[in-house]
Amino acid sequence: MTSRDGYCWTPKDGLKAGVPSLGVVTPASNICSSEATYDVVVIGAGYCGLTAARNASLEGLKVLLLEGRDRIGGRSWSSNIGGYPFEMGGTWVHWGQANTWREVLRYRMEKDIESSFDFSKGVKHFELNTHQGSATMSHEDEDALLDSALKKFTNVDGVYGRVMIPLPHDTFHNPGSIALDSQSAQNRIDDIASTLSPQERAALETFILLCSGGTLETTSFHEFMHWWAMSGYTNQGMMDLLITWKFREGQSTFARRFFDEAVATKRLSYSFNTPIERIKDNVSDVEIITRTGRKFRALRAISTVPLNVLSSVSFEPPLPAGKQAAIRIGHVNQTVKVHAEISNKDLRSWTGITYPYNELCYAIGDGTTPAGNTHIVCFGGQNKHMDPETDIPRTQKAVSSMFNPDHYDGKSVDIQRLVFHNWSKDEFAKGAWFFPPPELLAKHLDDMRARHGKVVFANSDWALGWRSFIDGAIEEGTRAALEVRKEIEDLRTERATL
Amino acid sequence: MTSRDGYCWTPKDGLKAGVPSLGVVTPASNICSSEATYDVVVIGAGYCGLTAARNASLEGLKVLLLEGRDRIGGRSWSSNIGGYPFEMGGTWVHWGQANTWREVLRYRMEKDIESSFDFSKGVKHFELNTHQGSATMSHEDEDALLDSALKKFTNVDGVYGRVMIPLPHDTFHNPGSIALDSQSAQNRIDDIASTLSPQERAALETFILLCSGGTLETTSFHEFMHWWAMSGYTNQGMMDLLITWKFREGQSTFARRFFDEAVATKRLSYSFNTPIERIKDNVSDVEIITRTGRKFRALRAISTVPLNVLSSVSFEPPLPAGKQAAIRIGHVNQTVKVHAEISNKDLRSWTGITYPYNELCYAIGDGTTPAGNTHIVCFGGQNKHMDPETDIPRTQKAVSSMFNPDHYDGKSVDIQRLVFHNWSKDEFAKGAWFFPPPELLAKHLDDMRARHGKVVFANSDWALGWRSFIDGAIEEGTRAALEVRKEIEDLRTERATL
Repeated sequence: MTSRDGYCWTPKDGLKAGVPSLGVVTPASNICSSEATYDVVVIGAGYCGLTAARNASLEGLKVLLLEGRDRIGGRSWSSNIGGYPFEMGGTWVHWGQANTWREVLRYRMEKDIESSFDFSKGVKHFELNTHQGSATMSHEDEDALLDSALKKFTNVDGVYGRVMIPLPHDTFHNPGSIALDSQSAQNRIDDIASTLSPQERAALETFILLCSGGTLETTSFHEFMHWWAMSGYTNQGMMDLLITWKFREGQSTFARRFFDEAVATKRLSYSFNTPIERIKDNVSDVEIITRTGRKFRALRAISTVPLNVLSSVSFEPPLPAGKQAAIRIGHVNQTVKVHAEISNKDLRSWTGITYPYNELCYAIGDGTTPAGNTHIVCFGGQNKHMDPETDIPRTQKAVSSMFNPDHYDGKSVDIQRLVFHNWSKDEFAKGAWFFPPPELLAKHLDDMRARHGKVVFANSDWALGWRSFIDGAIEEGTRAALEVRKEIEDLRTERATL
Repeated sequence: MTSRDGYCWTPKDGLKAGVPSLGVVTPASNICSSEATYDVVVIGAGYCGLTAARNASLEGLKVLLLEGRDRIGGRSWSSNIGGYPFEMGGTWVHWGQANTWREVLRYRMEKDIESSFDFSKGVKHFELNTHQGSATMSHEDEDALLDSALKKFTNVDGVYGRVMIPLPHDTFHNPGSIALDSQSAQNRIDDIASTLSPQERAALETFILLCSGGTLETTSFHEFMHWWAMSGYTNQGMMDLLITWKFREGQSTFARRFFDEAVATKRLSYSFNTPIERIKDNVSDVEIITRTGRKFRALRAISTVPLNVLSSVSFEPPLPAGKQAAIRIGHVNQTVKVHAEISNKDLRSWTGITYPYNELCYAIGDGTTPAGNTHIVCFGGQNKHMDPETDIPRTQKAVSSMFNPDHYDGKSVDIQRLVFHNWSKDEFAKGAWFFPPPELLAKHLDDMRARHGKVVFANSDWALGWRSFIDGAIEEGTRAALEVRKEIEDLRTERATL
């Protein structure tokens, strides 16, 4: 099935909106009437909503899942094109990500992952293009460069953050770390600038922007340190946990397991293509009003609407001031992720940075397509933002500028296909994965996590651990389903007692 | 409540069998009659059985949990004595352990953990006592010593095992790694012996024995590499993941959450003090016969009996040859874990090795008791085995031999209390956590995991990831409950269709 989401460009067909995905659900609804009162309505069918809906339905609740899109997965989904899965959003997983890996094992998918990196083939170098010039180096030297830079960046306490953030699921466990959240990545770089070589600085800044999708000024230093702590306080840990292991058949094969298991309980109703407009907390239930005016009722609601989208939903009674303030601030991640299929077969083992003058700044060889082409995945963000679909020649140039022809006998890369999702223009995402500006977390993490009457707010954006990751989404969906299930049980017990 | 398990010795009261624990369940049974046919009977109330029983009951099955002991937790439980929790078995957890941490987050216990290590107080050194003499060094030097030794030990492929075991949940993913399972730790040490300093070798051998509880000859080199891979291929990762974070109030507070949640479903029946003798697979159900001749029936059984105990249960029809072979081989871990409360307040930040001539070889300062004494936890194993309860003066000597009086102004330590569980003499454990001898896994991992008719075998002993850990127990309990729940659903559907 083809989703409305995503774009694909080829020389032959030009730009097409909408790409195929296993995540598209058809028929889009299994609801007969709107009359019923559900135990819980789950808004959003990303990993958080899928987890909440699955757990609640497995544990006996009558669940309604509403989703604005035509597909499951939210900010993580894959499109299989020409027998090859392109990851449109969240991609990588690792056994150190508790909530994700618990599900990978539960679904017996532990053999269904493969490494993005294969440093055994053809051009086995890292390419670094900056205002200072263009250099290539081995991947070992690439690791050493970033390792050195990250050690300087993160060493706030003499032990690389282990004292400042000892227990990363309790972000501000050490109150001294709150000050780190007042700092931006730029502030921290300014502090250590004299210790960084130009190459270290370029690699470091690019890597930070790869994580945050913002600018150095809008990137919370604390949140970067939180990622670092979650990854075991090492560059190698970040590589392993953030950007190595992906599903061989694509993310949507994983998301499908959650959805299909929930459907199999026969307690899940769902409606896709159903954006919601209003959530009204009544005395005895909560009412969900869709954009087309349909109404649904449930004893509880779980909203998995991301922070940057929450302002598009109206709440009765209105949300409390703290949550409203967090929504006004929003998160800063405007990552641009562009897949390019290039005919240069030798580039499977290539990685590169072009920074800061290009719209895309970081890229890696990510696979070989059935056609024998090299698949590279490129990242840009708010630092030098573009909408890839609006000007394809410009997007092509941003991709080809990742490669300096000097290193390839004067040849530039030959782009056979581009695949991407414009997350910034996506009304249900308004950005990529959550990344906070300074002070948002210290001031409003608890506000973002707080419930509002019968509505529980769950999203990876405010998870405790792998916040911003698939893992955080599953963490939050698990929390929300458990909270709601216990309340529904209490309601049933009350009624039985009356 | 006081469990029959465990021992406590004090100068005043001498040796007492049985220590208090939150894990003791009272009344020990909530079964009215044996007439009912359950959906599933779960044998064993360790973390694996607790997880299976909880998940199955949450998802609507009628569950019977049978346990030979008077308490939950199996090989992981804590005893609170004098307001201080002593960990009798499995202790440490980490957010990199997927199944465990998913539950820690789900039960909102992420703030309920603390570090065993506190290197800020008094005697801040590591003490190494060997046949070559006695030395002290800083904890930084201790880390560097083991780090250097482990790098030599694990570097089988030039990248510290990353090529040999790239995907640790698929242990033999690289077929080349099967050869590692033919090697013992002793074989590998022989290969690299010329590169190790005497201190490196002593630290390395002690650490390997701390992991396996066997001898160097009976320790599979592959399984050690598996632990190493699970820990991120670094010494620091092993320290973080294996031996750092524990529950502030003790393991049994965690196990209780599973049990209490299962009880709250009202679908869990249970009977403690109920060892089983026989499992009989009939045409339409499975029959469990206890040691006292009580019979229970269920559609399916989940046996969480550990490998070393399986020979005490008879099966009809008999178990297949592969599983029987694995049971005959068994695992090799005969760890002796002894807690000592010592009046020397300055030793909180102390760590030590005394090897190979002492019954205990590795110890750390693990806390300060409410009485102001230092709590140290000591480990020994098959290498030089003792039963701590049979000869208390000898046990005291083994503890005090961890300290060389030369380093403490000629003073020896003053032992105020000993607490321990003799896992080797425990009929329901017959050893500590699973550790395989060479070839057991390569030949029989699949056999151990295989079901037998209506009986699903689940135990951390044959988990894919954190095999031998609490995490592996939860992994296996999750797998078993899901498998059984799907089958029961299918049976119901079949019956409804007839």
